[in-house]
Amino acid sequence: MTEMDLGMTERLKPIHERVSRMVSEEILPLDEEFLAEVGAGDDRWTYTPRQTEILEGLKAKARERGLWNFWLTGSERGYGLSTVEYAYLAEEMGKAHLGAETFNCSAPDTGNMEVLERYGSQDHKKRWLEPLLEGKIRSAYLMTEPDVASSDATNISLRCERDGDDYVLNGEKWWASGAGDPRCAIYIVMVKTGTGEAKHKQHSMILVPADAKGVKKLRAMKVYGDDDAPHGHLHIRFENVRVPASNLILGEGRGFEIAQGRLGPGRIHHCMRAIGQAEKALEMMCTRSMRREAFGKPLAQLGANFDIIAECRMEIEMARLLCLKAAWMIDQGDARAAAPWISQIKVVAPRVALKVTDEAVQMFGAQGISQDTPLARAWTHLRTLRLADGPDAVHRRQIARAELKKYTQEQV
Amino acid sequence: MTEMDLGMTERLKPIHERVSRMVSEEILPLDEEFLAEVGAGDDRWTYTPRQTEILEGLKAKARERGLWNFWLTGSERGYGLSTVEYAYLAEEMGKAHLGAETFNCSAPDTGNMEVLERYGSQDHKKRWLEPLLEGKIRSAYLMTEPDVASSDATNISLRCERDGDDYVLNGEKWWASGAGDPRCAIYIVMVKTGTGEAKHKQHSMILVPADAKGVKKLRAMKVYGDDDAPHGHLHIRFENVRVPASNLILGEGRGFEIAQGRLGPGRIHHCMRAIGQAEKALEMMCTRSMRREAFGKPLAQLGANFDIIAECRMEIEMARLLCLKAAWMIDQGDARAAAPWISQIKVVAPRVALKVTDEAVQMFGAQGISQDTPLARAWTHLRTLRLADGPDAVHRRQIARAELKKYTQEQV
Amino acid sequence: MTEMDLGMTERLKPIHERVSRMVSEEILPLDEEFLAEVGAGDDRWTYTPRQTEILEGLKAKARERGLWNFWLTGSERGYGLSTVEYAYLAEEMGKAHLGAETFNCSAPDTGNMEVLERYGSQDHKKRWLEPLLEGKIRSAYLMTEPDVASSDATNISLRCERDGDDYVLNGEKWWASGAGDPRCAIYIVMVKTGTGEAKHKQHSMILVPADAKGVKKLRAMKVYGDDDAPHGHLHIRFENVRVPASNLILGEGRGFEIAQGRLGPGRIHHCMRAIGQAEKALEMMCTRSMRREAFGKPLAQLGANFDIIAECRMEIEMARLLCLKAAWMIDQGDARAAAPWISQIKVVAPRVALKVTDEAVQMFGAQGISQDTPLARAWTHLRTLRLADGPDAVHRRQIARAELKKYTQEQV
Amino acid sequence: MTEMDLGMTERLKPIHERVSRMVSEEILPLDEEFLAEVGAGDDRWTYTPRQTEILEGLKAKARERGLWNFWLTGSERGYGLSTVEYAYLAEEMGKAHLGAETFNCSAPDTGNMEVLERYGSQDHKKRWLEPLLEGKIRSAYLMTEPDVASSDATNISLRCERDGDDYVLNGEKWWASGAGDPRCAIYIVMVKTGTGEAKHKQHSMILVPADAKGVKKLRAMKVYGDDDAPHGHLHIRFENVRVPASNLILGEGRGFEIAQGRLGPGRIHHCMRAIGQAEKALEMMCTRSMRREAFGKPLAQLGANFDIIAECRMEIEMARLLCLKAAWMIDQGDARAAAPWISQIKVVAPRVALKVTDEAVQMFGAQGISQDTPLARAWTHLRTLRLADGPDAVHRRQIARAELKKYTQEQV
Repeated sequence: MTEMDLGMTERLKPIHERVSRMVSEEILPLDEEFLAEVGAGDDRWTYTPRQTEILEGLKAKARERGLWNFWLTGSERGYGLSTVEYAYLAEEMGKAHLGAETFNCSAPDTGNMEVLERYGSQDHKKRWLEPLLEGKIRSAYLMTEPDVASSDATNISLRCERDGDDYVLNGEKWWASGAGDPRCAIYIVMVKTGTGEAKHKQHSMILVPADAKGVKKLRAMKVYGDDDAPHGHLHIRFENVRVPASNLILGEGRGFEIAQGRLGPGRIHHCMRAIGQAEKALEMMCTRSMRREAFGKPLAQLGANFDIIAECRMEIEMARLLCLKAAWMIDQGDARAAAPWISQIKVVAPRVALKVTDEAVQMFGAQGISQDTPLARAWTHLRTLRLADGPDAVHRRQIARAELKKYTQEQV
Repeated sequence: MTEMDLGMTERLKPIHERVSRMVSEEILPLDEEFLAEVGAGDDRWTYTPRQTEILEGLKAKARERGLWNFWLTGSERGYGLSTVEYAYLAEEMGKAHLGAETFNCSAPDTGNMEVLERYGSQDHKKRWLEPLLEGKIRSAYLMTEPDVASSDATNISLRCERDGDDYVLNGEKWWASGAGDPRCAIYIVMVKTGTGEAKHKQHSMILVPADAKGVKKLRAMKVYGDDDAPHGHLHIRFENVRVPASNLILGEGRGFEIAQGRLGPGRIHHCMRAIGQAEKALEMMCTRSMRREAFGKPLAQLGANFDIIAECRMEIEMARLLCLKAAWMIDQGDARAAAPWISQIKVVAPRVALKVTDEAVQMFGAQGISQDTPLARAWTHLRTLRLADGPDAVHRRQIARAELKKYTQEQV
Repeated sequence: MTEMDLGMTERLKPIHERVSRMVSEEILPLDEEFLAEVGAGDDRWTYTPRQTEILEGLKAKARERGLWNFWLTGSERGYGLSTVEYAYLAEEMGKAHLGAETFNCSAPDTGNMEVLERYGSQDHKKRWLEPLLEGKIRSAYLMTEPDVASSDATNISLRCERDGDDYVLNGEKWWASGAGDPRCAIYIVMVKTGTGEAKHKQHSMILVPADAKGVKKLRAMKVYGDDDAPHGHLHIRFENVRVPASNLILGEGRGFEIAQGRLGPGRIHHCMRAIGQAEKALEMMCTRSMRREAFGKPLAQLGANFDIIAECRMEIEMARLLCLKAAWMIDQGDARAAAPWISQIKVVAPRVALKVTDEAVQMFGAQGISQDTPLARAWTHLRTLRLADGPDAVHRRQIARAELKKYTQEQV
Repeated sequence: MTEMDLGMTERLKPIHERVSRMVSEEILPLDEEFLAEVGAGDDRWTYTPRQTEILEGLKAKARERGLWNFWLTGSERGYGLSTVEYAYLAEEMGKAHLGAETFNCSAPDTGNMEVLERYGSQDHKKRWLEPLLEGKIRSAYLMTEPDVASSDATNISLRCERDGDDYVLNGEKWWASGAGDPRCAIYIVMVKTGTGEAKHKQHSMILVPADAKGVKKLRAMKVYGDDDAPHGHLHIRFENVRVPASNLILGEGRGFEIAQGRLGPGRIHHCMRAIGQAEKALEMMCTRSMRREAFGKPLAQLGANFDIIAECRMEIEMARLLCLKAAWMIDQGDARAAAPWISQIKVVAPRVALKVTDEAVQMFGAQGISQDTPLARAWTHLRTLRLADGPDAVHRRQIARAELKKYTQEQV
């Protein structure tokens, strides 16, 4: 019962095998074509027919094979996988751009679906969770705001005021990832509903349909120059956006409670996908280093390249083990005990994946920074993970406080 | 005579003051507008009228004020600045996107102009150097090729064969920076003219007009997703491109000789501009850290931020001093003695600037990776410098060999 | 069966609890007194009566309690612990200077006993293994030589020639750890017995009693100035040292085979003890940081100290998990598959422990480098682990080769 | 006048040449013998006759040649060298254990002599400065205390109370470097004379003869196990130690004023000697890497060794330039402006020298950590510099505050 099994379980192995094979044999070969289509049509913010064909084709195959919605850990609706088990699958999905979405396991939908599954009303579930579970619509999670340091989430200030049977929202959000997608139908929005209460009781989460009146898409935020269309990371203004009061999830002032429940597993998913990207980058680095020659030798034989490869291998192994340990902690059911482990891997996984990817870029030379490999895109995506869901500094702070509390009863 | 004065000379000070002020007061305020226009017109690969107005307006002002062509170090045509003196100006120019071009000091033109100034025929000078010196045309330098490890430049393989009074070129180049610019009129191309000779005597440099028949612009290479239009880094195919034999610079087999002369000072320029970017990033980091608050304090007071700021300050100072020392070595006139110093700063300056920029990104949070600050663009540009003109590993190898040769007569 | 359980097993928990408590409550409090006695008597190379009293007292208690010879993993003689299980105990033992010896689990005896257990003759076992198992004598392992790069062990050159029923040894060994101990009765010596054979078939291992004629103890090697008396790391000359031919273990030319068997688990032991030292150092760092004040605040609240503590915590967790994974690989029984994992942890564990210890030193200020804490001694000991049993570079090379072999059949 | 000449001046070159040659040809060859004598006599805390012969012999030669007291920068008594010039000499002296003392330029005497030269009364100068300048006695500087965080020097608490014409001292100091030397005749002691005044006006410096009644030498502090006898770093108790009131330097409450004057140049000296040690270590690493073979190649050709050598070269160059810049800032005469530069090099120089030395240790393998090379001793000495005269963290804090003050008038 208390054993810490971080390996693949027997039931997971065949699933893992099928997911892994589908990623490498069916999804990866289409990634490049899919990405090359971005901006090829009239509108960057729609999918081209070929993109739709690729994506929906993959999804249909995966669903047909029962490789679908793995993220529903511990739930009756899904496979009932443990977080550790899911982590192994997330790693595989991370290796392809379309990996996660093919299996209906992509962010931010998984986190949003968890919120609806755990905290949503029957009506919320029927209206939004069902189509999400079927991969028919997509969703966004609106947290960060342009004018405050969102690393301290008590700063969140988008006003949401009760007016009769409705709530009325005013303010701005940015980095609404996925809100550019034409299929994105629903937002979960962190809002400020209170003022006088305790700092962590003033915020709430509310459902806002993407087509609600007053929702203004101001612009797409770019990540190192890339707007990530048509997924997109939007800057959105809410001007007197009115939604029924029943759209409020769980009740006023419970925003932080929901956020905590939402972010834990999601962070593990991100981290394991990051590790998948790192594995992919290391593989590319190795094969490149053996094929490319300079000064009469394969690159592998030159300079520090053995050492670089070895360091990447060690860092990946350690990051994966730490991630599995954090997943195992989540599976033990004590969120408070798991929190510092999640913070640890949240700092470590992006760092390691960034490092490995950057070394791979360097091994590929100018090709590495270009559109001819997935490395440059992987790097910029990974870089966002050092900020998303809390910057490194905030997580290190949490880790240190957990450490010091072992030795004192006092506030640290 | 032998003193190692790394400070600003008296004659430089007023020039530096004027350049610095023009960068901060006139160029920087227009950078954002200029960049926002990219892609705003019908064709990403032309300048919009507003872009032309901004750029040519700045150039005209600079030229009128005599702030022009500083890079002609040790030459009678220009200011006769030393490399050390020029380095101080390059740092200022590096702080703005349009900094270098405003003063007709941007890459790759400066290197190309140096080649023409030093090694070009009278005809070359009249035809191409004059309009370049006046800022009327631009140029590209075509070295790297897609199919070989160009870090070992003896791999360069674009064929250039004598045919009567002409040379005929066949092959591919990529990362032809600036070749996308509609003003780019002339390419200096590193080609293979020999085969049986000693390894470093088989290559030559030749002038190819951008509009020569058979020059096919295949595509624009992207840097972390950005095509850098309209400047561009092009992938170009030469299909039986024919140029007069007199376009060959200096003579067959002298390509490496020219390359060495070209790259030394150019690397210093790149490095000092990188240090300028780092200074700018540190300034932004400091002001941000005092204005932005989280957990009830300005960011500067939180966690490791003092230490981060201090480390950035130290690294910048050391990199600047090393760069000035390398510049001073160039000024001493012994290229062989200067070479390991240039390799040193070629490794150090991009690394430091990348680190400082990345820390600044982190201090800015999600805004740092976006289009709302120049940091993300600076980072991707700086990242190319770890590959351009030789990857880090090649330079470290040169440094180590120079070091070991102090102790042995043997080949190391 | 294939599950990767890296946690503590149910049977281990009570043992672990008892070992842990004995270390913290009985051994640690005597460490300082024991160490302060070094050099207090007439001869640095004998134990003072008080030292003997402390050490033998602890051993007797441990043996009486059955906390003895845990290292005999997978053997019928011992607890039959798995390597994973033993690793958890080794971590606890690493926290005290006398930790390992108290439980008869100290290096180099454990490795030597393993050699005798696995490869020794009945006579070897009776004569040397029995008293070692009882903690009555100690042993040394003589591998490294002063005149060759022992990182490439095929360089080992101490001559061992057959002469009738005897072998005669001539040459020098150094860093014979434990050979200074008056209780050290037997050496296992790596010798060169062949010449014409394949490179890995020319060496053998042979038993040489410490009091054999011709064994000259030349001097004690110092580790950062400390001779580690009376344990000692001796430089020894063999002058026509004659031993019976039956002292040769397993047969001529099988030295490398034995060495590989010997070193694998031993490296894990070292690594887990290193992690124990790191945990101890982090604990000291944390308590110090809360008690010591400067500039009106506890050190913990100053500058980067939260970040330093967090980084140490993360690095320890990852190193521990990697070590447990390597132990688990050993337990799977495929030595070739386990080898790169052992190389990985051999590089990682000392590095992490050195880093954490050094940060702890810095947190303690001048006290940290002094005799007033165990930190300085821990650091110098840990520093030897980056060299002992193969320097980092050799292990990184092994890791890289294992990695590249995944993608090629060729020699890498 | 404002030029920043960081090179060797013409007048310095012949002096530098003579110092450099004396270090390499006369001092270095005796270092090992001198150090091997430590502890060879009856008493570790006296010099053996051979040690005295070596040391006094070298000093006599140096003095005879006029290579003496270079540290008196800007003074009429000495060479009138600038700090930059002296820095070049300090680097050479750093390469040998006896380097600095041979030229009467060793710490803590130089700092103490500076205090006496600048702030001492005529009587102080005659009584103590004269014999120090002649190398007849030595001195110690007693600052740090065992029970307080001396990194915040306002914590210094050794009581010094006026009693008639005397002052009476009570309390403890430790890390009194050089106080073990039988020639050490005088201490400069930082004491607390006030209480109610402003925090930086409560301390004073006072001269206490080493043989004053009530001075109890409690023990020698060890540095990573080495007591550094007979120089020593003593823990001393003052029990009602009575000295004449005229022994107080400059006046009550002026301790910090003196400390600042004392520490600036002294830190540069330490740093440049550290860089000399780093240069020496790099030289050893290079020659070792070419002579030692493993796997059929000289170590230099293996793995990352070229990269390691290159990194060491770059780091040394940058640290030296930064140190020279800091020296130049001191020479400009504005102590406040120079302070952050001194803090910078105080952090950088030990770090770089530690890194280079540690890499050299690794290249030497087990020999590197032993008494057979000066590397291990160099490392432990260098490690103290990250704590002495303020730990890294305090200096980084100063650097950051100086940086932020560029942008704000407020307290940071």
